[in-house]
Amino acid sequence: MCPDGPSHREGSGMGFFFPYLASMSVKLFTYDRLFQFAKDVFTKIGCNKDDATLATKALLSADLRGIDSHGIARLSGYVRLWEAKRVNACAEIKILHQTLSTATVDGDSGLGLVVAPKAMQLAIDKAKQVGSGWVSLQNSNHFGIAAFHAMMALEENMIGIAMTNASPLVAPTFSIERLLGTNPICVAIPAGKQQPFVADLATTTAANGKLEILQRKNGVAPLGWIQTKEGRPSTDPHELKIGGALLPLGGDREHGSHKGYALGAIVDIFSAVLSGANYGPWVPPFPAYVPMPEGMPGKGIGHFLGAMRIDAFRSAEEFKQHMDQWIERFRSAKTIDGFDKVIIPGEPEREMEAIRRTEGIPLLGPVVDDLTYLAEKFNLTLS
Amino acid sequence: MCPDGPSHREGSGMGFFFPYLASMSVKLFTYDRLFQFAKDVFTKIGCNKDDATLATKALLSADLRGIDSHGIARLSGYVRLWEAKRVNACAEIKILHQTLSTATVDGDSGLGLVVAPKAMQLAIDKAKQVGSGWVSLQNSNHFGIAAFHAMMALEENMIGIAMTNASPLVAPTFSIERLLGTNPICVAIPAGKQQPFVADLATTTAANGKLEILQRKNGVAPLGWIQTKEGRPSTDPHELKIGGALLPLGGDREHGSHKGYALGAIVDIFSAVLSGANYGPWVPPFPAYVPMPEGMPGKGIGHFLGAMRIDAFRSAEEFKQHMDQWIERFRSAKTIDGFDKVIIPGEPEREMEAIRRTEGIPLLGPVVDDLTYLAEKFNLTLS
Repeated sequence: MCPDGPSHREGSGMGFFFPYLASMSVKLFTYDRLFQFAKDVFTKIGCNKDDATLATKALLSADLRGIDSHGIARLSGYVRLWEAKRVNACAEIKILHQTLSTATVDGDSGLGLVVAPKAMQLAIDKAKQVGSGWVSLQNSNHFGIAAFHAMMALEENMIGIAMTNASPLVAPTFSIERLLGTNPICVAIPAGKQQPFVADLATTTAANGKLEILQRKNGVAPLGWIQTKEGRPSTDPHELKIGGALLPLGGDREHGSHKGYALGAIVDIFSAVLSGANYGPWVPPFPAYVPMPEGMPGKGIGHFLGAMRIDAFRSAEEFKQHMDQWIERFRSAKTIDGFDKVIIPGEPEREMEAIRRTEGIPLLGPVVDDLTYLAEKFNLTLS
Repeated sequence: MCPDGPSHREGSGMGFFFPYLASMSVKLFTYDRLFQFAKDVFTKIGCNKDDATLATKALLSADLRGIDSHGIARLSGYVRLWEAKRVNACAEIKILHQTLSTATVDGDSGLGLVVAPKAMQLAIDKAKQVGSGWVSLQNSNHFGIAAFHAMMALEENMIGIAMTNASPLVAPTFSIERLLGTNPICVAIPAGKQQPFVADLATTTAANGKLEILQRKNGVAPLGWIQTKEGRPSTDPHELKIGGALLPLGGDREHGSHKGYALGAIVDIFSAVLSGANYGPWVPPFPAYVPMPEGMPGKGIGHFLGAMRIDAFRSAEEFKQHMDQWIERFRSAKTIDGFDKVIIPGEPEREMEAIRRTEGIPLLGPVVDDLTYLAEKFNLTLS
């Protein structure tokens, strides 16, 4: 540890940049320092150099974009999955079936952080050839944030789409059983002078990461985020530990929770029924200590990745001019009193990335402890 | 009119089948009778026989499935658009640009009910060739329910996807301006012994049709559906007539309205920025008496249609077995006390269709009046 170093500070001084951290113990790390550390950890568990680099890029893209629940805070979780022999660090992806515009890929139990970008590259390659590419991926593990994979398409003048199923935490409308994950969808769309449109959303009212923040603060969750194990509305962020469930986007039937449930179901089916992965309540849990479900119908968890070349529909130049107009019109929309502007999907994350690349990435005490544990385990230096 | 005929009844007796109609004046019509009438109207405005049949099938699929706001209740609206020269009844679709898996199609100002299924057929044909097909359609008009188009893929052992933008009624999160339509997404997925999974959802908390029902009843809308023209929460279903707006799925920021807004935006961009149609606040209004927006950046309204062959990913037989397992597991999930079962997307509409094919389709008084007006105008017999 290096408490006096210029690149990380201890205490509550980060409240200005990161209001929700104001009362917590945090340390700031530079991106480069965390990059080297995570890459070393992935190398120690057996990833080759390229895979360790790729996994680290995917992992830290979450920290840069402010999605702290999906970044380096999960590194020890991935290591535990490797220890439990659920993650194969030397995975070789294999195409099981394909057409000119589609493929199903076996992720060989690899890190989702490695095999998902490779599957996305396959989708992009197909789009180069025939206009669009769609890859369903079985036998994978948690892939970090969906945006990392979808955004790979942007550099190629393509629209990128990424989705994944996840450990069951969400009850379908009218149910008390947790049958779906927070099953995110990301759509990344290039623009011209404007920055790209990047919508990355869990199909629940609130992502699990937001609940984790409330848990740490012992806060109160808004109604519509969670239910008790009997299916009653709850404001207790710890409800999931005693049988409660997250709620689909919409919260309750009157507010459209059947739509959030349907969206989560579509992600589950595209990611897993199409690929041959596990779906619904059979999705393997992320924590390595949780027993695997019985009677699993597929392999690992599943993702679905897509790429569409813009100029497979119209001139990319024209498209981008209109995307700029779209973005400018929405950003300049009249606001409700008290609000500055209408947000374009992807803007807050991009602003966060600009800050964190300069100011550093703040990690909470328990995350630093986890990394310290990994440093000792693998004989590495964290700072 | 034929008040004594066996196929339609007047009064409040339909409350058993259609509880929301219990207190309203309704008449029941057989599907065949409405089919002949609508087909005659489409023929009178100049559709050839095949197009009139196709338009009628698409239109009445809404009435059969219980989506009354999108069925024959809109027939007079389509005729008014034709009178205003905004609908071309003799449209010939034209492929503007294509690759093996994609196309952009000009709908020639045709009825969406006609040109959208033709574009969907093109997507299906491409999927037959290269695994998937994706068609973006400009210069179209209202296409009825998204499910009609998406479900065309089911017969081909394909997953069908349909979306459309629509007249601006929805305010993005933090805004008081109506910049998006209710922009629905439908995904239709085949199963084996089970009936298909068909999720067709407006990206708003509540579809406009639900609001119309409350308007007729002078009812109270739940909070989270609409806002006033200043952006305050409202329960008045008439709010849109005085500058208010529908809210994106989620309702408010705390409940994820930024996700509903992002989903509506994705539909808008896929349907219109990709195709060269109008987007955002420039989408042509459905009522022919509403002036067209100034400075429109494209042609007509836009749709986006997709088809993916199941066996472009895995054996269709295997897939269907797993879809059956998925459906059976979700349907049999433990319910919250007081609820019978977890609903599989598409089930309520299929049950409604079974009832309406047998019992008839109930039309409200004002809808019957509209059809009577059309009957007189075109010298047709309604019953």
